[in-house]
Amino acid sequence: MLQALGVVRSGVGSGPEAGTTVIADPAGGIGAALRLHLATRRLPMADLVGTRAMIEGASARAAALVPSSPDLDHAEDLLSRMDAPGIDADTYHQLDADFHVTITRAAGNAVNTAIMTALRDAIHHTVLHATAALPDWPRTAARLRREHRAILRAIRAGDGDRAAALVVRHVEGFHREWSRHSQDVEAGS
Amino acid sequence: MLQALGVVRSGVGSGPEAGTTVIADPAGGIGAALRLHLATRRLPMADLVGTRAMIEGASARAAALVPSSPDLDHAEDLLSRMDAPGIDADTYHQLDADFHVTITRAAGNAVNTAIMTALRDAIHHTVLHATAALPDWPRTAARLRREHRAILRAIRAGDGDRAAALVVRHVEGFHREWSRHSQDVEAGS
Repeated sequence: MLQALGVVRSGVGSGPEAGTTVIADPAGGIGAALRLHLATRRLPMADLVGTRAMIEGASARAAALVPSSPDLDHAEDLLSRMDAPGIDADTYHQLDADFHVTITRAAGNAVNTAIMTALRDAIHHTVLHATAALPDWPRTAARLRREHRAILRAIRAGDGDRAAALVVRHVEGFHREWSRHSQDVEAGS
Repeated sequence: MLQALGVVRSGVGSGPEAGTTVIADPAGGIGAALRLHLATRRLPMADLVGTRAMIEGASARAAALVPSSPDLDHAEDLLSRMDAPGIDADTYHQLDADFHVTITRAAGNAVNTAIMTALRDAIHHTVLHATAALPDWPRTAARLRREHRAILRAIRAGDGDRAAALVVRHVEGFHREWSRHSQDVEAGS
């Protein structure tokens, strides 16, 4: 259970990685706790999406006030790496999640960044699983790439209203597409 | 360290409370992780206030859509208990923090409620300490009580815009008053 909570890590064999070690980074603990909530279905996915839309909307708006932040250069770099031909879904989603956390980091609120990091860790496997179930992932991925570019462009242009609206639509849209298909699957169609 | 993280609890003597027990509620783990962040000064208080203002503003607005929620009856009850003559500061702040979490709960997003619970636990001791340092606590407390009543009244009236504006001003105002005084103390005046 302590391992599931992200508090200790178990290693086999001998050497510095062997045995049970206490993990020092408390941010991991936040992510693990949210992940556990999710695993026990105590936190509905719709609420996670609502919280993400709220934090990311506010962050995109705030980031547009500092359009020359080095975090935005990093975000640009992440988008370029997501364009790599033949990229696998796991790598794509790691970069996608990093892009979202990086926009929040650019806004400068360390508490929001810690929460977004926790949420990213909490939903990573769920998103991967959801993606595998989508009928046309390459088409969805192409749309997500265009939306990421448009969000970053609005922030760079200092247009906070537009950046906030685009990121909220992006987060809610992906959830809507995926829940529609999840329901189909549950209904056996 | 596991105790500090809120993962285990130690009890002395014999019986069901004795020995080291793993705590089942992962929400405690989120609160503990944020508390640890704060203790190590990795999360600035100004950012915690910014996150609270964002979540509580959005929650007050959403709660105004469900003005007959039983959570709002509970919030009303908490305000009555805060009016008790001769109430000590510790009890007052527990009720005050519960009031804020209850408004968020009324809005119905379980993730926001979990985050607010974590933040409440993270800042409780800091707020108590800050209050003790204020030049005229009874006067501040009277103002906070009036503000709580006005926030709940706006929610009950279904006026989401006003409720959101009032709660943001309330959260930011208390922080401003207190940081002004903290700076005075640090400067030795």
